[in-house]
Amino acid sequence: MALIVQKYGGTSVGNIERIRNVARRVGKTSGAGNQVVVVLSAMSGETNKLVGLTQEAAEFPLGREYDVVISTGEQVTVGLLAIILNEMGYRAKSFLGHQVPIVTDSQFGSARIESIGTDKMAEELKKGSIVVVAGFQGMDGQGNITTLGRGGSDTTAVALAAALKADLCEIYTDVEGVYTTDPNICSDARKLKKVSYDEMLEMASLGAKVLQTRSVEFAKKYEIPVMVRSSFTDAEGTLVCKEDSEMEKVVVSGITYNKSEAKISVLRVPDRPGIAAKLFRPLTEDGINVDMIVQNISHDAHTDLTFTVSNSDYKKALKLIKEKTAAEIGAEEVVGDPNIAKVSIVGAGMRSHAGIASQMFEVLAKEGINIQMISTSEIKISCVIDVKYTELAVRVLHESFGLGNNEVVEEKE
Amino acid sequence: MALIVQKYGGTSVGNIERIRNVARRVGKTSGAGNQVVVVLSAMSGETNKLVGLTQEAAEFPLGREYDVVISTGEQVTVGLLAIILNEMGYRAKSFLGHQVPIVTDSQFGSARIESIGTDKMAEELKKGSIVVVAGFQGMDGQGNITTLGRGGSDTTAVALAAALKADLCEIYTDVEGVYTTDPNICSDARKLKKVSYDEMLEMASLGAKVLQTRSVEFAKKYEIPVMVRSSFTDAEGTLVCKEDSEMEKVVVSGITYNKSEAKISVLRVPDRPGIAAKLFRPLTEDGINVDMIVQNISHDAHTDLTFTVSNSDYKKALKLIKEKTAAEIGAEEVVGDPNIAKVSIVGAGMRSHAGIASQMFEVLAKEGINIQMISTSEIKISCVIDVKYTELAVRVLHESFGLGNNEVVEEKE
Repeated sequence: MALIVQKYGGTSVGNIERIRNVARRVGKTSGAGNQVVVVLSAMSGETNKLVGLTQEAAEFPLGREYDVVISTGEQVTVGLLAIILNEMGYRAKSFLGHQVPIVTDSQFGSARIESIGTDKMAEELKKGSIVVVAGFQGMDGQGNITTLGRGGSDTTAVALAAALKADLCEIYTDVEGVYTTDPNICSDARKLKKVSYDEMLEMASLGAKVLQTRSVEFAKKYEIPVMVRSSFTDAEGTLVCKEDSEMEKVVVSGITYNKSEAKISVLRVPDRPGIAAKLFRPLTEDGINVDMIVQNISHDAHTDLTFTVSNSDYKKALKLIKEKTAAEIGAEEVVGDPNIAKVSIVGAGMRSHAGIASQMFEVLAKEGINIQMISTSEIKISCVIDVKYTELAVRVLHESFGLGNNEVVEEKE
Repeated sequence: MALIVQKYGGTSVGNIERIRNVARRVGKTSGAGNQVVVVLSAMSGETNKLVGLTQEAAEFPLGREYDVVISTGEQVTVGLLAIILNEMGYRAKSFLGHQVPIVTDSQFGSARIESIGTDKMAEELKKGSIVVVAGFQGMDGQGNITTLGRGGSDTTAVALAAALKADLCEIYTDVEGVYTTDPNICSDARKLKKVSYDEMLEMASLGAKVLQTRSVEFAKKYEIPVMVRSSFTDAEGTLVCKEDSEMEKVVVSGITYNKSEAKISVLRVPDRPGIAAKLFRPLTEDGINVDMIVQNISHDAHTDLTFTVSNSDYKKALKLIKEKTAAEIGAEEVVGDPNIAKVSIVGAGMRSHAGIASQMFEVLAKEGINIQMISTSEIKISCVIDVKYTELAVRVLHESFGLGNNEVVEEKE
């Protein structure tokens, strides 16, 4: 008997018929003698609808109340799945974030999990019940409802798997696994059988929408094997796990892109110690995550700083910098550009292979694509480019690093 | 400085523009130096949509999970109102049932309030905050989410007013007050300035949709004056309060009707002691409320029992009686009829006036309307008739008891 955590995303629970389909899968796993904890997202489109309401209500909705509104989507789906499972003859009980409890900090809209109480879930599992937990939500120390940020249900699933010492965490989504790149852009994109936590981490943070970054961090930290698979087929998925020697042979595992960031440049800042801190501290305090940061060498004791934030934070960040921070640090001008994309190559094998970066830059140059920012890690290289070149860049990089080829046949899809 | 509880119904919070309108009213009351507690329903249509989802999920959705789903509507509106109030510069904080806490019993779908914790609300009011509470929902002793049944937000409002010892409870709705009958049926229906708790209680329980019965019971018990008024106009509403001498002069205050009940007859039951208990106990245990009950004298030691339940419980009740209870009590046949209506006349003055019942029966007979069941209380007489005669019956009764007349002018509407 194994303890399995299964997470189903928004499209997998998009309507009652699909939730019934989820119930059948869950029932099958339970019927095979496993203990099952299910984590659900909101019905697809529902969270967007709720976010839309809050934005119609106010330009900058108060975080605490924003979370009260947008956490309702998951509450609906867990109740519905529990209803269906009970109707099918299983014992099943839904748990909201505050009922588990999943205790988080008080950073509304992007709270982090601090602890998970497992007693009540364990008690239900012991009784033979299927435990159905609302993803994406928690409760802070004062009893306020919090949410974990977009894709937070993945994090809920992996965190529950870690807390319950589960044998496996399955993430059911609308794709069959992790691909070498977006199949909508490259028709010959290939499904990966295995990918390391680190590679997945880079892919997730770079915009491959399969798994939320923090869920992979959790999985890595607690060494939870995570299987990403489709809720609509029985195809084997992609296993996200510890790096092994086989993986190291592959130089580049995948090409990812992210169109949901925007760029802000703070120009001609007097180059004094502490400038960067003064610039980024207020953003952090407002809960705005900064992704890439580039500062080049200075001229005439002045420097330019450029960074990217997510599109949803762009207006707020730009307003803050323009109206407040710019004057404090003596910047002459602040310019923003939301029309950018980040294209990246990721691979554990990069550590031991030279020339990968040059190859990437040459491929882009050959197509006349200008690189606006560059950032690198041990196993990835990212370039910010004009958003209109995104698909072109992904295609030429995918081909140049030999990711498409004939292995498609081998995967029998 | 007064403490005022204001409740806004579904149509009053039907979209963001209307919630903004509610925020302005709330702000005005707060700005005038009052402490304000606001109770909200779900957006109009939202609860029906959620109920529809649960019914699509299962024929008999499990009560605990049903409540998890349908309590989300109010969670959305309280978050949105708090967002708007904060944007307008007020301090405002939303509270869900479990956050107040509003503790109820565990009768899912129609839970009763057992206690209300006022500490957290009092603390916020003291800080100058507007407290925004989700109507209709509570939490039982085990931390499960419960709901109070249709119209439960009225009960939440009056119960909060009682617990907080409020000076006034205002129920904002889409009508301007309590009328002598449904203005959609009688164009000369008149708005009442005042109505006693008892009259309102009969009207509410008989289907006048202005206030939920239990909310009036609460108001009567704790002597909370309740003002029913429109959120769309500034017209004065109807005050529900203690009976006074002026009220007693009016023989019949209003004509009400209810189309949302169904009739079930259990035929030729051996007439033994305990039969009624055996018949109704299982219904109660399943949370089905029985309204009217009629048992006539028996023939050949057999009797017929007829009762009404709400339409939403009809299928469930009929199934239970047919498949289980009928055999146990030896009934020969069970027949049901959902096509009925209950038409009633209500008035505190009935206590001291004779002949009111006769007048009612005569008026109906004159129109050829057959009376299927009769039930009376001190201040009301109800008749069950074929649903198709509802409007006709209401109109002729309204006219016969002189409710329309020229007072319409006096009310200046």
